[in-house]
Amino acid sequence: MHTQSPTAPPTSELHQIFGARFVTEGPELDRVSRDESRYQPQGIALGAVFPETTAEVCVALRWANQHGVQVSVRGTGTGLSGGALAYDHGLVLSLERMNQIVRIDPVNRLADVQAGVINADLNQAAREFGLFFAPDPASATTASIGGNIATNAGGLRCISHGVTRDSVAALEVVLADGSILHTGARTLKNVVGLDLTSLFVGSEGTLGVITSATLRLQPIAAGTPYTFRASFESIEAAGRAVTAIVNSVQTPEVLELLDARSVEIIEAYKPSSLPADGNNLLIGQFTGLQAEAMAQDTAQLCREYGAAEVVIAEGDSLLEARRLANPALSAQGLRVSCDVAVPVGQLAEVFRGIDRISQNHGRTISVVAHAGDGNLHPTVEAEDTAQGYAAAELVIEDITKLALSLGGTISGEHGIGLVKRDQLPWQLDDTARRTHQLIKHALDPKHILTARRGI
Amino acid sequence: MHTQSPTAPPTSELHQIFGARFVTEGPELDRVSRDESRYQPQGIALGAVFPETTAEVCVALRWANQHGVQVSVRGTGTGLSGGALAYDHGLVLSLERMNQIVRIDPVNRLADVQAGVINADLNQAAREFGLFFAPDPASATTASIGGNIATNAGGLRCISHGVTRDSVAALEVVLADGSILHTGARTLKNVVGLDLTSLFVGSEGTLGVITSATLRLQPIAAGTPYTFRASFESIEAAGRAVTAIVNSVQTPEVLELLDARSVEIIEAYKPSSLPADGNNLLIGQFTGLQAEAMAQDTAQLCREYGAAEVVIAEGDSLLEARRLANPALSAQGLRVSCDVAVPVGQLAEVFRGIDRISQNHGRTISVVAHAGDGNLHPTVEAEDTAQGYAAAELVIEDITKLALSLGGTISGEHGIGLVKRDQLPWQLDDTARRTHQLIKHALDPKHILTARRGI
Repeated sequence: MHTQSPTAPPTSELHQIFGARFVTEGPELDRVSRDESRYQPQGIALGAVFPETTAEVCVALRWANQHGVQVSVRGTGTGLSGGALAYDHGLVLSLERMNQIVRIDPVNRLADVQAGVINADLNQAAREFGLFFAPDPASATTASIGGNIATNAGGLRCISHGVTRDSVAALEVVLADGSILHTGARTLKNVVGLDLTSLFVGSEGTLGVITSATLRLQPIAAGTPYTFRASFESIEAAGRAVTAIVNSVQTPEVLELLDARSVEIIEAYKPSSLPADGNNLLIGQFTGLQAEAMAQDTAQLCREYGAAEVVIAEGDSLLEARRLANPALSAQGLRVSCDVAVPVGQLAEVFRGIDRISQNHGRTISVVAHAGDGNLHPTVEAEDTAQGYAAAELVIEDITKLALSLGGTISGEHGIGLVKRDQLPWQLDDTARRTHQLIKHALDPKHILTARRGI
Repeated sequence: MHTQSPTAPPTSELHQIFGARFVTEGPELDRVSRDESRYQPQGIALGAVFPETTAEVCVALRWANQHGVQVSVRGTGTGLSGGALAYDHGLVLSLERMNQIVRIDPVNRLADVQAGVINADLNQAAREFGLFFAPDPASATTASIGGNIATNAGGLRCISHGVTRDSVAALEVVLADGSILHTGARTLKNVVGLDLTSLFVGSEGTLGVITSATLRLQPIAAGTPYTFRASFESIEAAGRAVTAIVNSVQTPEVLELLDARSVEIIEAYKPSSLPADGNNLLIGQFTGLQAEAMAQDTAQLCREYGAAEVVIAEGDSLLEARRLANPALSAQGLRVSCDVAVPVGQLAEVFRGIDRISQNHGRTISVVAHAGDGNLHPTVEAEDTAQGYAAAELVIEDITKLALSLGGTISGEHGIGLVKRDQLPWQLDDTARRTHQLIKHALDPKHILTARRGI
């Protein structure tokens, strides 16, 4: 247990309201003080609350605001940018028990859910109505919807269905002072006031706590999906193929890239006869009644762009290798990765630049990419020492600057959190950062919510 | 010319910078003091500036901010909600001369444009690359892109391509203090900081002046579009057909509804052999290589939902009647209309309610609707007298409350402006309005920009 600070706030109200759901020590507090980033909690929290209702979130925030206690907000802690790490003497607010799917409205293709609902659980419930929730982060089986919204999560289907923001119709948010804000509408169009829904999507817990959401669902396409896998000796050629596919008339549902080093790592982790001998793999999927024909057309396009081998299969099996990328990299202890994005026309150029950076630093870089939307996750191999990680971080910095120089962004889908906060000025100039601070200060004047992270 | 107020600010700086592009009287000032709403300017402006560069917009706003002068911002003044009406002793800022298409980047499907570019001009330029700009308001041939963005304009293609926000990647905005804010990115995904792009889209000039934008373009579908027109004796049956079409697997590019009264008015305005004998018309279009088959499938669905007659034609001709609706209504002097939206599952119910309201008030209501996205434009027939208009406004109020009661919104695409400001509390509660005011005050502390409108 941590030592009390001299000015420790009285916690009797939290004990009274939350009872056993206010935890002040032990493994449960430790668990909710962390996330899946490579960073550590910023100290020892005074406790964690596990609200089950919006009213309880209001109580917790009113209490924290009154006492000036910093609050870290979390769903299931799958974030990779350190946005949910506990503060020293802070309060952890975990939404994991707010996990009710309140309603699915199939005629209007809407779902009302609490923030702690797991992405995959919503998808299972929606499937009964022939619908699905498009945002599909790698963590879909464990990540909460609230976290997906707070980080504007991406995933494999952004090329066809956009980012999380495109699937959020309305939000319930508890502001720092404990008041409840409703944003958005149940309609497809709504221009009444500012688009506060979009302001909170991707705000990483800095402006308010998302407690429930009205989400847009999509119809599951008819027929069986078809997946293709094309191998390229040259990653630049693969990049040019992606640009050509994206600019053809047939948009795939999914278009992913694994570079040769990633393919080796995945094949070593779980062998599945991948062509792991120096091949970069492009894996794409089409859905709908024309899926097979579109996969064949795209396979032909890949051959024209230099693919040595292309295979096509009914169903999902070829995508399995892509889904293994994260566990395979983690199993190797490879945690120094980044999340840059570039305009899709710059893919060949960014791959050429990453190769140059790899040579300059003498470090192997593996790249997994949501290639269809230009979002890359390069991972740098590093010794498991402070020096090894520091050297790898310098490689990440160079890759990040490369992406910016190509008209790209320092984060495509993971967010800023604590991990990328120092890089924010590389992309946002003084006026942009001042504007962020003005909005932050207006909505959270005591700066209790996810302070000094994200924005 | 208006009388100078006792505290008239010195305008020598504006004369010096803008020369003949600072206009202080005459028909040009009168023209830019108005918009296409049924409201009048709120007095006589001290003058209007016509900047040609972002730097000139900065000068104008710094000047206005320094002297506490209220600023009305306009593109081409096609707005219907009174957002661009001049203020008494205010400054009119017209972006119409900032009309350069700076660059079209076909590989990344992006266009960089100044705010004063006309929507249709961008579309003409994009067409050379096989691309188009999806937002398609009725005013597309005269409305500026900046105005489209400021109001998050809708139009006919929202069912297939979303609203204007979905086509905006990045913005350049001049804030009230004259500083230049850049938002967004050129990538498909970007989670760096708050989504300020979406905050400014639809902000109706209340937070800053949009001076240029990076827009997303879409590929023009292959093949010829096919259009169908289905006639229904019962508008409720037409509403049920729309719900069924939207919930089928084939999303039309366009799905519009003209009620029987609108059809009569349009046929009287420009006869084109419409079935004007009590028929409500559903007009939809499909694009792409499967367009004809999809039009036929949907025609069959319409028959199952009670359509008496369905015709299908290659190309755009059947949509012409829809495009005539606005001029036909205007020619009849019908200006008391509204812009409510409901979830698409509530269409039959909202039509039933509008019929009831029509009977209660003893006034004819004609309805034109972007039916596929649930956005209705009911117009109330009114005598050309103050009493006539006042009575019609009461009908609009009842329709607006009906839409809200069905989970709808008081504005689907026209915005709030001055016209709907008093209705804002019907939809936004105290916390929502306070949040709007906090953000407004943070970014424009002297409240010079489009004050007391929109939010």
